[in-house]
Amino acid sequence: MKVYLDNNATTKIDPLVKVKMQPFFEDLYGNPNSLHQFGMDVRPHLNEALGSMYDALHVRDEDDILITSCATESNNAVLKGIFFKYILSNPEKNHIVTTSVEHPSVLDTLSFLSEHGVDVTYVDVDNEGGISLEAMMAAVTDKTILISMMWANNETGMIFPVKEVSEAAKEKGILFHTDAVQAIGKIPVNLTDIDVDYMTFSAHKFHGPKGIGGLYVKKGKSLPNLFHGGEQMGGKRAGTLNVAYIVGMGLAMKQAVGHVEKMNIDVRRLRDKLEDAISKIADTIVVGPREKRTPNTILVSLKGIEGESMLWDLNRAGIAASTGSACASESLHANPVMSAIGEDPELAHTAMRLSLSRFTTEEEIDYVIEMFTKAAERLRAISSTYAYTNKAS
Amino acid sequence: MKVYLDNNATTKIDPLVKVKMQPFFEDLYGNPNSLHQFGMDVRPHLNEALGSMYDALHVRDEDDILITSCATESNNAVLKGIFFKYILSNPEKNHIVTTSVEHPSVLDTLSFLSEHGVDVTYVDVDNEGGISLEAMMAAVTDKTILISMMWANNETGMIFPVKEVSEAAKEKGILFHTDAVQAIGKIPVNLTDIDVDYMTFSAHKFHGPKGIGGLYVKKGKSLPNLFHGGEQMGGKRAGTLNVAYIVGMGLAMKQAVGHVEKMNIDVRRLRDKLEDAISKIADTIVVGPREKRTPNTILVSLKGIEGESMLWDLNRAGIAASTGSACASESLHANPVMSAIGEDPELAHTAMRLSLSRFTTEEEIDYVIEMFTKAAERLRAISSTYAYTNKAS
Repeated sequence: MKVYLDNNATTKIDPLVKVKMQPFFEDLYGNPNSLHQFGMDVRPHLNEALGSMYDALHVRDEDDILITSCATESNNAVLKGIFFKYILSNPEKNHIVTTSVEHPSVLDTLSFLSEHGVDVTYVDVDNEGGISLEAMMAAVTDKTILISMMWANNETGMIFPVKEVSEAAKEKGILFHTDAVQAIGKIPVNLTDIDVDYMTFSAHKFHGPKGIGGLYVKKGKSLPNLFHGGEQMGGKRAGTLNVAYIVGMGLAMKQAVGHVEKMNIDVRRLRDKLEDAISKIADTIVVGPREKRTPNTILVSLKGIEGESMLWDLNRAGIAASTGSACASESLHANPVMSAIGEDPELAHTAMRLSLSRFTTEEEIDYVIEMFTKAAERLRAISSTYAYTNKAS
Repeated sequence: MKVYLDNNATTKIDPLVKVKMQPFFEDLYGNPNSLHQFGMDVRPHLNEALGSMYDALHVRDEDDILITSCATESNNAVLKGIFFKYILSNPEKNHIVTTSVEHPSVLDTLSFLSEHGVDVTYVDVDNEGGISLEAMMAAVTDKTILISMMWANNETGMIFPVKEVSEAAKEKGILFHTDAVQAIGKIPVNLTDIDVDYMTFSAHKFHGPKGIGGLYVKKGKSLPNLFHGGEQMGGKRAGTLNVAYIVGMGLAMKQAVGHVEKMNIDVRRLRDKLEDAISKIADTIVVGPREKRTPNTILVSLKGIEGESMLWDLNRAGIAASTGSACASESLHANPVMSAIGEDPELAHTAMRLSLSRFTTEEEIDYVIEMFTKAAERLRAISSTYAYTNKAS
């Protein structure tokens, strides 16, 4: 059996999305910016896709959804846009507040900008992997121009207080950006209820194609382009439109948002079943209370077992999981979220993430429970550190 | 009959490329950066695609080909990378030389950077639409850090002296970038023979998908990322890899480069046949000598006929052409290349571009000749300016 439990890294394409994209690899190849029939033929499809996204996220007509090539582009666009628009010309407003567990596309961009005069405060998560309104706002100074905080964490699934922080930021005249990559399709994301200035998303996290994403920009909050050039996207993001993927993302988002209730009930039930089984294994720690997490994610630490070893045992059984973000998977650093939580450094290397999707079945979860338990037993039996730890305690 | 003669704007996907991409919309959906089997399954396909590109462009192993989302991204990455690496910290080297007929993604980016201390010299084309080595190098000063010159012009097809300018730049210790979007698949592009530091390309100009491109970066000439984040592309361009399109681009480039000879013989013959017929119409000007142009392109001006009107007449006959770059098509400015050539401003509004591909057939060209001639007659008959011009002369 092959079981894919790495849906926070990437997801399979919804079969309906695949079908929807096909004509754009065939006859509908015109450039939508062209004035001839080949160009005009594709425009209604683009409009439909954008309409689906406006509806799914409850975006007001006057606001922008800029199509980008991925969430990494969206995050770079916001942070570098803020740099060019505000910080480069006014070093008095050079401070950005974020969390220490953002995606690398936020952390690395800020690290780069800090070489060019940007001052960044990284707020640590608490021992549940959570972030409080108080902790975020305590980091704000008179020089703060932007707060960037993810909606839900990719590693733990912990949901961060986006509504509260966005409101507090607004009161202080501070811009607010959220990376909602791990939220859309998993929990409700309603931009009429929650008033953010910028929001990042990515299709391949909700069963759309890899290589397309978006950036919500509130009216009046435009930033200098990351891509200067042609007049696409109202001149706010240049580059020939990837029509096939935009159409695919529109349907994928509609489908994903339409399945949030299924996520909350059916996928949550399967996740909890798996989590219950894992928690019965001695000396395991699951990070964060279930009710504060996205319904599909488990970050678990198994004392005495390297995450990598567990990964390989599961992989041999046909099960895909991860030790953390795929964007950092090729380096064998300690899991950054585990480190931020402040657990024993040894434990940080024992972290393992299991992330379900709406396509995950009960049969698959039963199989994973069996294989996971076996792998834990096998690896504990040959673990010198686990035996040592037990003897020592 | 439907005839697509707007291949400099975008091209249809090679049917072989479509087939090659399919599995990556189905079972091969793993993130190539993931360590499990789903991730590992896709890596050989990525390596094959990159290998095809290294071979097709004759790139040395030690140099980088960074995959980007489009040529616009590649051009922004080079120009903003130069800004961050050199100009921001050393205003003594703040000068960039380019041409006045570059793609908007170069011109607009430079316009933006000029608000932040970059000094730009725009070299005009001569009355053939060409650029000389002498004109480019005459613009160089002690402060010049970069020369950016396209390999072939998108409007006229005129081929610019890339080899000569790159060698002259090297002698003076100036970095050299070329936007080769309109060259690849049309004329030979061999980076062993021609020593550039940076080169931009885009798949959708050579029968690959829209939304994927590349940037060649010579060893030792790395720039700060446009996308900071994950460790993809050796940490030089973050963002989850668009596996399907990378695989598609690899095959598309292999196919396109493999058909350069066909372009030079068969497509050139069809282009020349069309151009001969158009040139028989009174008071037409085709820009640039044929032998100095890519073999698929004609930029023609018909005295007394608005390019837009001609476009609509052809469109009604099922023929797709353009008045210029699709990236600027929604604004009805005068064609910028015609303006740069310095023709009568009235003529700049009469420009029309016809661009063939290796899929263009003789039957199609015969049909276009018939329809083009009819349209010119019809529009001249109702043109007040043409009658006026004739009377006046």
